[in-house]
Amino acid sequence: MSAIDPVHLAGLVRRGDLRGLARALTVVENGGPEASVLMHKLYDPSPASRSVGLTGPPGAGKSSLADVLIAHWKSRGRRPGVIAVDPSSPFSGGAILGDRLRMQRHACDPDVFIRSMGSRGHIGGLASSTAQAAEVLAAGGFDPVLIETVGVGQGEIEVVSVADLTVLVLVPGLGDDVQMMKAGIMEIGDLIVLNKADRPGMDQLETVVRASLEFVREGRPVPQVVKCSVATGEGLEDLFSKLDDLLSSGRDFEAVRRGRVRENLLRVAAEQGTRFALELLERSYGIEKAVDMVLAGETTPYEIGERIAALSGRAPV
Amino acid sequence: MSAIDPVHLAGLVRRGDLRGLARALTVVENGGPEASVLMHKLYDPSPASRSVGLTGPPGAGKSSLADVLIAHWKSRGRRPGVIAVDPSSPFSGGAILGDRLRMQRHACDPDVFIRSMGSRGHIGGLASSTAQAAEVLAAGGFDPVLIETVGVGQGEIEVVSVADLTVLVLVPGLGDDVQMMKAGIMEIGDLIVLNKADRPGMDQLETVVRASLEFVREGRPVPQVVKCSVATGEGLEDLFSKLDDLLSSGRDFEAVRRGRVRENLLRVAAEQGTRFALELLERSYGIEKAVDMVLAGETTPYEIGERIAALSGRAPV
Repeated sequence: MSAIDPVHLAGLVRRGDLRGLARALTVVENGGPEASVLMHKLYDPSPASRSVGLTGPPGAGKSSLADVLIAHWKSRGRRPGVIAVDPSSPFSGGAILGDRLRMQRHACDPDVFIRSMGSRGHIGGLASSTAQAAEVLAAGGFDPVLIETVGVGQGEIEVVSVADLTVLVLVPGLGDDVQMMKAGIMEIGDLIVLNKADRPGMDQLETVVRASLEFVREGRPVPQVVKCSVATGEGLEDLFSKLDDLLSSGRDFEAVRRGRVRENLLRVAAEQGTRFALELLERSYGIEKAVDMVLAGETTPYEIGERIAALSGRAPV
Repeated sequence: MSAIDPVHLAGLVRRGDLRGLARALTVVENGGPEASVLMHKLYDPSPASRSVGLTGPPGAGKSSLADVLIAHWKSRGRRPGVIAVDPSSPFSGGAILGDRLRMQRHACDPDVFIRSMGSRGHIGGLASSTAQAAEVLAAGGFDPVLIETVGVGQGEIEVVSVADLTVLVLVPGLGDDVQMMKAGIMEIGDLIVLNKADRPGMDQLETVVRASLEFVREGRPVPQVVKCSVATGEGLEDLFSKLDDLLSSGRDFEAVRRGRVRENLLRVAAEQGTRFALELLERSYGIEKAVDMVLAGETTPYEIGERIAALSGRAPV
């Protein structure tokens, strides 16, 4: 792919050019100054598009749910975007979610934009890249933008927390782990979907989930709970209506905007800082030379870190 | 807790003082210059202690497996340490794994050290703090050090990848998600434990897992696979013997040491860079003032990020 001026690319995205959109997402994934210029041009502190984070443990049925949500939004004349966040390890290349079976039927639809994000690179973290990709899709006219993860864990929570709303999908059979997840995870779900309602153990799961809602801290919204079965369709209308209410009027997005802008600023600053420190490490020691010194017992990574901090501190402000 | 000199604290850790060890872990969690000094003093590029990362989806039986591993290592006269990494959201305080039911029976044993790590703070990321906590336990004479996560996802993979060896626990019933996990996750497991061998779907799970081993990239070790049932005890002796072989002689730890020192260096540098950038943001704009400017449409987070990068770049090297 030839180099492309990020200002021109921003214009293509705003006009809804799909090839431009795909290129813009690649620029975001690659990071660097081009991504900064592109994102600066596309930035909107008050976007019309909403984003929805979708998380839950493996096997909870997140991709099936994503599929029915896409079909639902399409039937209402909306143009949903999807960012499927790939759980592959830092060692593995590329995105493997392209072949998510259940979403494939939307792959050739110009009114649905699906993009996988791999974990490689992303110097500021996958959450930062995901937030930027969601901003690109919003600028390209996709609404809502669904941010789907495969796992449920610290990284996934960070990823989905960049969204306006989060949906947590749970199923019976998670054992003790659901107990352990509750304190933290219940706080991120605006909507908790109890999927596979026909499975044994649903009553017990519902009891645990409802009990845990008491732990939601004061001042935070108490998540709504919906029981459904994506496989049979049971309860889906209720889910659609609750989610669409939340998206349209059920939540005071103005009130949370300040917090989201602050988080965005801190993410971008942290990304720049990380980039700078790694450059400083390379320039002042050379990474391999520093490794040699540590292996020879001449210094430690922590001493080198302090030295980098001291060098950074000399920057005039 | 009164302030304590980190150099003195490092001495307490090395002498195996348990209260000193607990304090040292708190220093690590709080981060900052004290943590740097402490870790510098405790650093060992060639530690005798090994660490084992334990990950897998919720419900896979990780904490039951941790419990039997602890009991096994104890029975061989070893002193295992455990770092239980908490999945709680960035918004939720504190560690909730203290009450992991199955590990409690070891809680009062002086030859087993169990510590939960919450997700709050950790400016350089939870993986960085976890790596440091494992180094502290190793310096305190605990071996092996088990690093257990609750979820399985991007963050968990980063967390367990700081360990010398990783164990991935899977169970039947993960649905399509196991397909999606395979490309990335299979590469992080030195040992893949198929737990709940008596459950329906085990044959299918084993087929998927064994097929996915063909995707392990050339030059990387192919994970071993063990079937067991932690509940009935079936297959556990095989699991213990394979894991202990890997820990003692089954892997060339020298060969991976350089890579691990490099990762440690990059983590520490990134942490310092993030800290510096956030200070610079505060000093040069004031975070709340910057938020005001973005909300007023005067600038964007990306433009501020570039400005911070430009300021950083002026640091003399």
